Amino acid sequence: MIACLDLEGVLVPEIWINVAEKTGIAELRLTTRDIPDYDVLMKQRLKILDQHHLKLQDIQEVIATMSPLEGAQDFLHWLQSEFQVIILSDTFYQFAAPLMKQLHYPTLFCHFLKVEKSGKITDYQLRMKDQKREAVKKLKDLNFKIASAGDSYNDIGMLEASDVGIFFCPPEKIVSEYPQFQVTQDYGQLKSAFQNAMERFSTGS
Amino acid sequence: MIACLDLEGVLVPEIWINVAEKTGIAELRLTTRDIPDYDVLMKQRLKILDQHHLKLQDIQEVIATMSPLEGAQDFLHWLQSEFQVIILSDTFYQFAAPLMKQLHYPTLFCHFLKVEKSGKITDYQLRMKDQKREAVKKLKDLNFKIASAGDSYNDIGMLEASDVGIFFCPPEKIVSEYPQFQVTQDYGQLKSAFQNAMERFSTGS
Repeated sequence: MIACLDLEGVLVPEIWINVAEKTGIAELRLTTRDIPDYDVLMKQRLKILDQHHLKLQDIQEVIATMSPLEGAQDFLHWLQSEFQVIILSDTFYQFAAPLMKQLHYPTLFCHFLKVEKSGKITDYQLRMKDQKREAVKKLKDLNFKIASAGDSYNDIGMLEASDVGIFFCPPEKIVSEYPQFQVTQDYGQLKSAFQNAMERFSTGS
Repeated sequence: MIACLDLEGVLVPEIWINVAEKTGIAELRLTTRDIPDYDVLMKQRLKILDQHHLKLQDIQEVIATMSPLEGAQDFLHWLQSEFQVIILSDTFYQFAAPLMKQLHYPTLFCHFLKVEKSGKITDYQLRMKDQKREAVKKLKDLNFKIASAGDSYNDIGMLEASDVGIFFCPPEKIVSEYPQFQVTQDYGQLKSAFQNAMERFSTGS
């Protein structure tokens, strides 16, 4: 049994929003809701960082002041005692690192930023398209049962491919579009949902 | 970049040998070197446990007195800070659990024992054949570079499928049969070997 978890919004706060707040650069608050094309959005973000002469280490310092969501560490610790946990995120390893350290380095599948020796972020590299869905499919090929939890549109592929898909604190809009996934609003509810999945998997139903 | 590690002999002692010593049941020391057919060996082990009225919880209590190998926790912690770590082992989740807890629950792919409500172990279930090699192949399909380390014949598939395969404290016989894999004898050497792999992966060579 494997549990796949989204990172931002499930275990840690939204990274870009925090970077926007802590640097005071409001334009960095833009998300895929404002600019639906992810590539356009990311290019825009990298341009803004460059205009403000912000290098990777500056952003990492900001991220290092962030903490996991309240209760996230206990929840993750419990989950790891019952499932094999893999975090599937569309963030970048270089950004996630300070938060992963605080979570005792759970296994994370995400993407890489391209960074010059000077620390300037020049580009980003998606490891593959629709990586969350693909990861679940490959893990299923290894005869694992998969339960997963996420909160946004980029989690839908993962939730659909899993044996059990769970929403955690999702926006209302996405819930009405995807009514097939159980909605949980706190770690207690999320834990119960994973326990139910465990029960289903172990009785083979 | 993913690091795949064998468990027994690399991070923790051999489980069956310790169970044999701590229960005083010498026959449980038998390994695939004595009985090459794994299925025959496992059936034999389960028969011996039954003859001695040993239930799962008795074995788990013995295993809970074991500790990771000296230096294993520090090595694993370092490895997790640089790679995404997945442990590929042919042990069983129910046996590994007490040791995984001591290692802060790294992600583990292994097999399940079939256990009655009474705690009697009735059978075992391999999740799939050649699961170590298959896991590396599926992770490669997800566009990861893989470095792996192991010490025995059941690790060869994993080492062969990886971009970089490393032996850790292997028996001499296996080294002469598979001279293509770098041999490391302690965690310092193993760390260097993973650092070299990291260097190769990040320069794309």
